[in-house]
Amino acid sequence: MKLSARNQLPGKVKALNVGVVTAEVVVELDGGGELVAVITKKSVENLGLAVGKKVYAVVKSTEVMVAVD
Amino acid sequence: MKLSARNQLPGKVKALNVGVVTAEVVVELDGGGELVAVITKKSVENLGLAVGKKVYAVVKSTEVMVAVD
Amino acid sequence: MKLSARNQLPGKVKALNVGVVTAEVVVELDGGGELVAVITKKSVENLGLAVGKKVYAVVKSTEVMVAVD
Amino acid sequence: MKLSARNQLPGKVKALNVGVVTAEVVVELDGGGELVAVITKKSVENLGLAVGKKVYAVVKSTEVMVAVD
Amino acid sequence: MKLSARNQLPGKVKALNVGVVTAEVVVELDGGGELVAVITKKSVENLGLAVGKKVYAVVKSTEVMVAVD
Amino acid sequence: MKLSARNQLPGKVKALNVGVVTAEVVVELDGGGELVAVITKKSVENLGLAVGKKVYAVVKSTEVMVAVD
Repeated sequence: MKLSARNQLPGKVKALNVGVVTAEVVVELDGGGELVAVITKKSVENLGLAVGKKVYAVVKSTEVMVAVD
Repeated sequence: MKLSARNQLPGKVKALNVGVVTAEVVVELDGGGELVAVITKKSVENLGLAVGKKVYAVVKSTEVMVAVD
Repeated sequence: MKLSARNQLPGKVKALNVGVVTAEVVVELDGGGELVAVITKKSVENLGLAVGKKVYAVVKSTEVMVAVD
Repeated sequence: MKLSARNQLPGKVKALNVGVVTAEVVVELDGGGELVAVITKKSVENLGLAVGKKVYAVVKSTEVMVAVD
Repeated sequence: MKLSARNQLPGKVKALNVGVVTAEVVVELDGGGELVAVITKKSVENLGLAVGKKVYAVVKSTEVMVAVD
Repeated sequence: MKLSARNQLPGKVKALNVGVVTAEVVVELDGGGELVAVITKKSVENLGLAVGKKVYAVVKSTEVMVAVD
Protein backbone atom coordinates (compact mmCIF):
# COMPACT_ATOMS: atom_id res chain seq x y z
CA MET A 1 0.00 0.00 0.00
CA LYS A 2 1.34 3.46 -0.94
CA LEU A 3 0.05 6.20 1.39
CA SER A 4 -0.43 9.94 0.94
CA ALA A 5 1.09 10.61 4.39
CA ARG A 6 4.45 12.14 3.44
CA ASN A 7 6.28 11.34 6.66
CA GLN A 8 7.41 7.72 7.00
CA LEU A 9 10.48 7.44 9.22
CA PRO A 10 12.14 4.01 9.68
CA GLY A 11 13.08 2.79 13.15
CA LYS A 12 12.34 0.08 15.67
CA VAL A 13 10.12 -0.27 18.73
CA LYS A 14 12.00 0.88 21.84
CA ALA A 15 9.15 0.69 24.37
CA LEU A 16 5.46 -0.19 24.60
CA ASN A 17 2.92 0.90 27.21
CA VAL A 18 -0.44 -0.75 26.58
CA GLY A 19 -3.64 0.48 28.23
CA VAL A 20 -7.28 -0.60 27.99
CA VAL A 21 -8.03 1.23 24.74
CA THR A 22 -4.82 2.94 23.62
CA ALA A 23 -1.13 2.14 23.65
CA GLU A 24 2.01 4.26 23.62
CA VAL A 25 4.72 3.14 21.23
CA VAL A 26 8.19 4.70 21.46
CA VAL A 27 9.98 4.37 18.12
CA GLU A 28 13.76 4.73 18.08
CA LEU A 29 14.48 6.28 14.67
CA ASP A 30 17.24 4.86 12.47
CA GLY A 31 18.43 8.44 12.01
CA GLY A 32 18.64 8.99 15.76
CA GLY A 33 16.09 10.49 18.15
CA GLU A 34 12.65 9.10 18.95
CA LEU A 35 9.03 9.48 17.92
CA VAL A 36 6.21 8.61 20.32
CA ALA A 37 2.95 7.31 18.85
CA VAL A 38 -0.39 6.72 20.53
CA ILE A 39 -2.37 4.10 18.61
CA THR A 40 -5.09 1.67 19.69
CA LYS A 41 -4.29 -1.47 21.69
CA LYS A 42 -5.97 -3.43 18.86
CA SER A 43 -3.50 -1.97 16.34
CA VAL A 44 -0.57 -3.09 18.51
CA GLU A 45 -2.01 -6.62 18.34
CA ASN A 46 -2.83 -6.42 14.59
CA LEU A 47 0.73 -5.33 13.74
CA GLY A 48 2.33 -7.76 16.20
CA LEU A 49 4.37 -4.94 17.73
CA ALA A 50 7.06 -5.87 20.26
CA VAL A 51 10.26 -4.24 21.47
CA GLY A 52 12.93 -4.49 18.77
CA LYS A 53 10.52 -4.86 15.83
CA LYS A 54 11.35 -2.84 12.67
CA VAL A 55 8.62 -0.25 12.05
CA TYR A 56 7.91 3.09 10.42
CA ALA A 57 6.59 6.12 12.30
CA VAL A 58 4.00 7.66 9.95
CA VAL A 59 2.59 11.19 10.19
CA LYS A 60 0.24 13.13 7.86
CA SER A 61 1.91 16.48 7.05
CA THR A 62 -1.10 18.51 8.20
CA GLU A 63 -0.42 17.19 11.69
CA VAL A 64 3.18 18.45 11.83
CA MET A 65 3.85 21.82 13.46
CA VAL A 66 7.02 23.92 13.31
CA ALA A 67 8.69 25.71 16.21
CA VAL A 68 11.65 28.06 16.62
CA ASP A 69 13.69 29.01 19.71
CA MET B 1 7.03 27.49 26.64
CA LYS B 2 7.12 23.75 27.46
CA LEU B 3 4.62 21.75 25.38
CA SER B 4 2.82 18.44 25.97
CA ALA B 5 3.54 17.33 22.37
CA ARG B 6 6.20 14.65 22.94
CA ASN B 7 7.77 14.78 19.49
CA GLN B 8 10.10 17.73 18.93
CA LEU B 9 12.77 16.91 16.33
CA PRO B 10 15.51 19.50 15.58
CA GLY B 11 16.39 20.35 12.01
CA LYS B 12 16.41 23.22 9.53
CA VAL B 13 14.12 24.43 6.76
CA LYS B 14 15.05 22.74 3.47
CA ALA B 15 12.17 24.04 1.31
CA LEU B 16 9.08 26.25 1.53
CA ASN B 17 6.01 26.22 -0.72
CA VAL B 18 3.61 28.99 0.29
CA GLY B 19 -0.01 29.08 -0.91
CA VAL B 20 -2.92 31.43 -0.24
CA VAL B 21 -3.87 29.92 3.13
CA THR B 22 -1.43 27.12 3.86
CA ALA B 23 2.26 26.49 3.35
CA GLU B 24 4.36 23.35 3.04
CA VAL B 25 7.58 23.33 5.05
CA VAL B 26 10.16 20.60 4.42
CA VAL B 27 12.34 20.16 7.50
CA GLU B 28 15.68 18.42 7.07
CA LEU B 29 16.19 16.63 10.40
CA ASP B 30 19.54 16.88 12.20
CA GLY B 31 19.35 13.10 12.61
CA GLY B 32 18.90 12.61 8.87
CA GLY B 33 15.70 12.22 6.84
CA GLU B 34 12.94 14.80 6.47
CA LEU B 35 9.59 15.76 7.95
CA VAL B 36 7.03 17.68 5.88
CA ALA B 37 4.70 20.07 7.72
CA VAL B 38 1.63 21.89 6.46
CA ILE B 39 1.02 25.01 8.55
CA THR B 40 -0.71 28.30 7.76
CA LYS B 41 0.94 30.96 5.61
CA LYS B 42 0.47 33.34 8.58
CA SER B 43 2.52 31.00 10.80
CA VAL B 44 5.37 31.01 8.26
CA GLU B 45 5.37 34.80 8.53
CA ASN B 46 5.00 34.83 12.35
CA LEU B 47 7.99 32.49 12.76
CA GLY B 48 10.05 34.21 10.07
CA LEU B 49 10.69 30.88 8.35
CA ALA B 50 13.19 30.80 5.50
CA VAL B 51 15.39 28.13 3.94
CA GLY B 52 18.25 27.30 6.28
CA LYS B 53 16.54 28.48 9.48
CA LYS B 54 16.97 26.21 12.57
CA VAL B 55 13.57 24.80 13.57
CA TYR B 56 11.88 21.92 15.37
CA ALA B 57 9.29 19.65 13.74
CA VAL B 58 6.65 19.13 16.42
CA VAL B 59 3.99 16.39 16.46
CA LYS B 60 1.41 15.40 19.10
CA SER B 61 1.80 11.65 19.78
CA THR B 62 -1.87 10.90 19.07
CA GLU B 63 -1.18 11.97 15.48
CA VAL B 64 1.64 9.46 14.93
CA MET B 65 0.81 6.13 13.31
CA VAL B 66 2.97 2.99 13.12
CA ALA B 67 3.47 0.78 10.06
CA VAL B 68 5.27 -2.49 9.35
CA ASP B 69 6.42 -4.05 6.06
CA MET C 1 3.04 -1.77 4.20
CA LYS C 2 0.56 -2.61 7.00
CA LEU C 3 -0.61 0.49 8.88
CA SER C 4 -1.95 1.01 12.41
CA ALA C 5 -4.71 3.31 11.11
CA ARG C 6 -7.78 1.08 11.55
CA ASN C 7 -9.99 2.77 8.96
CA GLN C 8 -9.19 1.85 5.36
CA LEU C 9 -12.28 2.14 3.15
CA PRO C 10 -12.03 1.11 -0.54
CA GLY C 11 -13.43 3.35 -3.26
CA LYS C 12 -12.40 5.40 -6.27
CA VAL C 13 -11.58 9.03 -6.96
CA LYS C 14 -14.76 10.92 -7.88
CA ALA C 15 -13.33 14.46 -7.98
CA LEU C 16 -10.05 16.34 -7.50
CA ASN C 17 -9.56 20.02 -6.66
CA VAL C 18 -5.85 20.88 -6.61
CA GLY C 19 -4.54 24.10 -5.03
CA VAL C 20 -1.05 25.53 -4.56
CA VAL C 21 -0.19 23.46 -1.47
CA THR C 22 -3.17 21.21 -0.74
CA ALA C 23 -5.69 19.26 -2.76
CA GLU C 24 -9.21 18.04 -2.08
CA VAL C 25 -9.93 14.44 -3.09
CA VAL C 26 -13.53 13.19 -3.11
CA VAL C 27 -13.56 9.39 -2.74
CA GLU C 28 -16.70 7.55 -3.77
CA LEU C 29 -16.83 4.57 -1.39
CA ASP C 30 -17.49 1.07 -2.74
CA GLY C 31 -20.04 0.72 0.06
CA GLY C 32 -21.84 3.89 -1.03
CA GLY C 33 -21.45 7.46 0.24
CA GLU C 34 -18.33 9.60 0.00
CA LEU C 35 -15.29 10.59 2.04
CA VAL C 36 -13.51 13.90 1.36
CA ALA C 37 -9.76 14.05 2.00
CA VAL C 38 -7.44 17.05 2.07
CA ILE C 39 -3.89 15.95 1.30
CA THR C 40 -0.92 17.78 -0.19
CA LYS C 41 -0.69 18.52 -3.93
CA LYS C 42 2.63 16.63 -3.89
CA SER C 43 0.86 13.51 -2.56
CA VAL C 44 -1.66 13.69 -5.40
CA GLU C 45 1.29 13.64 -7.80
CA ASN C 46 3.20 10.92 -5.88
CA LEU C 47 0.15 8.61 -5.93
CA GLY C 48 -0.78 9.45 -9.51
CA LEU C 49 -4.34 10.24 -8.46
CA ALA C 50 -6.93 10.87 -11.20
CA VAL C 51 -10.70 10.58 -11.45
CA GLY C 52 -11.70 6.91 -11.55
CA LYS C 53 -8.55 5.56 -9.86
CA LYS C 54 -9.08 2.81 -7.23
CA VAL C 55 -8.00 4.13 -3.80
CA TYR C 56 -8.52 3.69 -0.08
CA ALA C 57 -9.66 6.46 2.24
CA VAL C 58 -7.55 6.04 5.39
CA VAL C 59 -8.28 7.56 8.80
CA LYS C 60 -6.58 7.11 12.20
CA SER C 61 -9.27 6.18 14.76
CA THR C 62 -8.32 9.02 17.12
CA GLU C 63 -9.47 11.41 14.38
CA VAL C 64 -12.98 9.95 14.11
CA MET C 65 -15.79 11.59 16.09
CA VAL C 66 -19.28 10.24 16.78
CA ALA C 67 -22.54 12.19 16.59
CA VAL C 68 -26.19 11.46 17.34
CA ASP C 69 -29.38 13.21 16.22
CA MET D 1 -25.87 22.15 14.63
CA LYS D 2 -24.37 22.16 11.12
CA LEU D 3 -20.66 21.30 11.12
CA SER D 4 -17.81 22.11 8.72
CA ALA D 5 -16.51 18.51 8.92
CA ARG D 6 -17.46 17.19 5.47
CA ASN D 7 -17.53 13.50 6.37
CA GLN D 8 -20.64 12.38 8.24
CA LEU D 9 -21.38 8.70 7.58
CA PRO D 10 -24.57 7.15 9.09
CA GLY D 11 -24.40 3.81 10.88
CA LYS D 12 -24.95 2.20 14.27
CA VAL D 13 -22.77 1.22 17.20
CA LYS D 14 -21.47 -2.32 16.72
CA ALA D 15 -19.07 -2.49 19.68
CA LEU D 16 -17.81 -0.37 22.58
CA ASN D 17 -14.56 -0.75 24.55
CA VAL D 18 -14.43 1.79 27.37
CA GLY D 19 -11.20 2.60 29.23
CA VAL D 20 -10.32 5.04 32.02
CA VAL D 21 -10.02 8.10 29.77
CA THR D 22 -10.82 7.02 26.21
CA ALA D 23 -13.22 4.62 24.54
CA GLU D 24 -13.20 2.76 21.25
CA VAL D 25 -16.43 2.85 19.29
CA VAL D 26 -16.88 0.54 16.29
CA VAL D 27 -19.49 2.00 13.94
CA GLU D 28 -21.11 -0.36 11.42
CA LEU D 29 -21.80 1.91 8.42
CA ASP D 30 -25.22 1.80 6.73
CA GLY D 31 -23.34 1.58 3.44
CA GLY D 32 -21.36 -1.45 4.61
CA GLY D 33 -17.93 -1.62 6.24
CA GLU D 34 -16.92 -0.13 9.58
CA LEU D 35 -15.29 2.98 11.02
CA VAL D 36 -13.48 2.84 14.37
CA ALA D 37 -13.51 5.99 16.52
CA VAL D 38 -11.53 6.77 19.67
CA ILE D 39 -13.38 9.39 21.72
CA THR D 40 -13.37 10.17 25.45
CA LYS D 41 -15.24 7.98 27.94
CA LYS D 42 -17.12 11.15 28.97
CA SER D 43 -18.38 11.60 25.38
CA VAL D 44 -19.70 8.03 25.37
CA GLU D 45 -21.70 8.93 28.49
CA ASN D 46 -22.79 12.35 27.16
CA LEU D 47 -24.13 10.80 23.93
CA GLY D 48 -25.64 7.78 25.68
CA LEU D 49 -23.87 5.42 23.30
CA ALA D 50 -24.78 1.73 23.43
CA VAL D 51 -24.61 -1.16 20.98
CA GLY D 52 -27.30 -0.76 18.33
CA LYS D 53 -27.69 3.03 18.69
CA LYS D 54 -27.99 5.04 15.43
CA VAL D 55 -24.97 7.35 15.08
CA TYR D 56 -22.84 9.21 12.55
CA ALA D 57 -19.09 8.73 12.18
CA VAL D 58 -17.70 12.23 11.64
CA VAL D 59 -14.26 13.10 10.26
CA LYS D 60 -12.68 16.47 9.33
CA SER D 61 -11.36 16.17 5.75
CA THR D 62 -7.85 17.28 6.72
CA GLU D 63 -7.60 14.09 8.76
CA VAL D 64 -8.38 11.76 5.83
CA MET D 65 -5.49 10.22 3.93
CA VAL D 66 -5.54 8.42 0.58
CA ALA D 67 -3.73 5.20 -0.29
CA VAL D 68 -3.25 3.12 -3.43
CA ASP D 69 -2.18 -0.52 -3.91
CA MET E 1 -26.81 16.90 15.89
CA LYS E 2 -24.99 16.24 19.18
CA LEU E 3 -21.25 15.67 18.69
CA SER E 4 -18.64 13.80 20.72
CA ALA E 5 -16.13 16.66 20.28
CA ARG E 6 -16.08 18.14 23.78
CA ASN E 7 -14.88 21.62 22.82
CA GLN E 8 -17.56 23.87 21.33
CA LEU E 9 -16.79 27.54 21.98
CA PRO E 10 -19.34 30.20 20.86
CA GLY E 11 -18.17 33.27 18.98
CA LYS E 12 -18.50 35.04 15.65
CA VAL E 13 -16.49 35.21 12.44
CA LYS E 14 -13.91 38.01 12.67
CA ALA E 15 -12.02 37.35 9.42
CA LEU E 16 -12.02 34.99 6.43
CA ASN E 17 -9.14 34.17 4.07
CA VAL E 18 -10.32 31.83 1.32
CA GLY E 19 -7.87 29.93 -0.91
CA VAL E 20 -8.30 27.40 -3.72
CA VAL E 21 -8.90 24.40 -1.45
CA THR E 22 -8.77 25.62 2.15
CA ALA E 23 -9.90 28.69 4.03
CA GLU E 24 -8.78 30.34 7.26
CA VAL E 25 -11.55 31.41 9.62
CA VAL E 26 -10.72 33.64 12.59
CA VAL E 27 -13.36 33.21 15.29
CA GLU E 28 -13.66 35.93 17.93
CA LEU E 29 -14.76 34.02 21.05
CA ASP E 30 -17.64 35.33 23.17
CA GLY E 31 -15.40 34.74 26.18
CA GLY E 32 -12.62 36.88 24.68
CA GLY E 33 -9.61 35.80 22.63
CA GLU E 34 -9.65 34.10 19.24
CA LEU E 35 -9.49 30.66 17.67
CA VAL E 36 -8.21 30.20 14.12
CA ALA E 37 -9.67 27.34 12.07
CA VAL E 38 -8.53 25.97 8.72
CA ILE E 39 -11.45 24.27 6.97
CA THR E 40 -12.22 23.64 3.29
CA LYS E 41 -13.43 26.41 1.00
CA LYS E 42 -16.48 24.20 0.29
CA SER E 43 -17.33 24.16 4.01
CA VAL E 44 -17.22 27.96 4.12
CA GLU E 45 -19.79 27.95 1.31
CA ASN E 46 -21.91 25.15 2.84
CA LEU E 47 -22.15 27.00 6.18
CA GLY E 48 -22.64 30.41 4.55
CA LEU E 49 -19.83 31.88 6.64
CA ALA E 50 -19.31 35.64 6.53
CA VAL E 51 -17.78 38.19 8.86
CA GLY E 52 -20.06 38.76 11.83
CA LYS E 53 -21.88 35.41 11.62
CA LYS E 54 -22.50 33.58 14.95
CA VAL E 55 -20.53 30.31 14.97
CA TYR E 56 -18.95 27.73 17.26
CA ALA E 57 -15.26 26.78 17.13
CA VAL E 58 -15.23 23.00 17.58
CA VAL E 59 -12.21 20.88 18.54
CA LYS E 60 -11.90 17.15 19.35
CA SER E 61 -10.13 16.83 22.72
CA THR E 62 -7.42 14.52 21.35
CA GLU E 63 -6.29 17.45 19.22
CA VAL E 64 -5.76 19.82 22.17
CA MET E 65 -2.27 20.14 23.65
CA VAL E 66 -1.25 21.74 26.95
CA ALA E 67 1.72 24.04 27.51
CA VAL E 68 3.31 25.72 30.53
CA ASP E 69 5.70 28.70 30.74
CA MET F 1 9.97 28.08 22.01
CA LYS F 2 7.66 29.85 19.53
CA LEU F 3 5.18 27.48 17.89
CA SER F 4 3.32 27.57 14.56
CA ALA F 5 0.08 26.44 16.27
CA ARG F 6 -1.96 29.65 16.16
CA ASN F 7 -4.30 28.84 19.04
CA GLN F 8 -2.78 29.30 22.49
CA LEU F 9 -5.46 30.13 25.08
CA PRO F 10 -4.38 30.92 28.69
CA GLY F 11 -6.16 29.27 31.61
CA LYS F 12 -5.58 26.93 34.53
CA VAL F 13 -6.09 23.23 35.20
CA LYS F 14 -9.61 22.63 36.54
CA ALA F 15 -9.60 18.81 36.56
CA LEU F 16 -7.35 15.87 35.72
CA ASN F 17 -8.35 12.28 34.90
CA VAL F 18 -5.26 10.12 34.42
CA GLY F 19 -5.44 6.69 32.77
CA VAL F 20 -2.81 4.07 31.90
CA VAL F 21 -1.65 5.75 28.67
CA THR F 22 -3.66 8.96 28.26
CA ALA F 23 -4.99 11.67 30.54
CA GLU F 24 -7.86 14.12 30.26
CA VAL F 25 -7.06 17.69 31.27
CA VAL F 26 -9.90 20.19 31.71
CA VAL F 27 -8.57 23.73 31.26
CA GLU F 28 -10.65 26.60 32.63
CA LEU F 29 -9.97 29.46 30.21
CA ASP F 30 -9.12 32.92 31.55
CA GLY F 31 -11.69 34.25 29.08
CA GLY F 32 -14.39 31.96 30.47
CA GLY F 33 -15.49 28.52 29.24
CA GLU F 34 -13.38 25.37 29.15
CA LEU F 35 -11.21 23.37 26.77
CA VAL F 36 -10.70 19.63 27.29
CA ALA F 37 -7.39 18.12 26.19
CA VAL F 38 -6.38 14.48 25.92
CA ILE F 39 -2.61 14.16 26.20
CA THR F 40 -0.38 11.32 27.36
CA LYS F 41 0.01 10.45 31.04
CA LYS F 42 3.77 10.98 30.54
CA SER F 43 3.13 14.56 29.37
CA VAL F 44 1.11 15.26 32.52
CA GLU F 45 4.14 14.15 34.54
CA ASN F 46 6.66 16.02 32.33
CA LEU F 47 4.73 19.30 32.69
CA GLY F 48 4.00 18.76 36.39
CA LEU F 49 0.29 19.39 35.81
CA ALA F 50 -1.96 19.70 38.85
CA VAL F 51 -5.29 21.37 39.57
CA GLY F 52 -4.84 25.13 39.70
CA LYS F 53 -1.65 25.27 37.61
CA LYS F 54 -1.44 28.07 34.99
CA VAL F 55 -1.37 26.54 31.50
CA TYR F 56 -2.16 27.24 27.86
CA ALA F 57 -4.52 25.12 25.76
CA VAL F 58 -2.81 24.81 22.37
CA VAL F 59 -4.48 23.75 19.11
CA LYS F 60 -3.17 23.63 15.51
CA SER F 61 -5.60 25.55 13.29
CA THR F 62 -6.09 22.63 10.90
CA GLU F 63 -7.69 20.77 13.82
CA VAL F 64 -10.34 23.41 14.48
CA MET F 65 -13.77 22.99 12.91
CA VAL F 66 -16.58 25.55 12.63
CA ALA F 67 -20.28 24.95 13.29
CA VAL F 68 -23.46 26.99 12.98
CA ASP F 69 -26.91 26.52 14.54
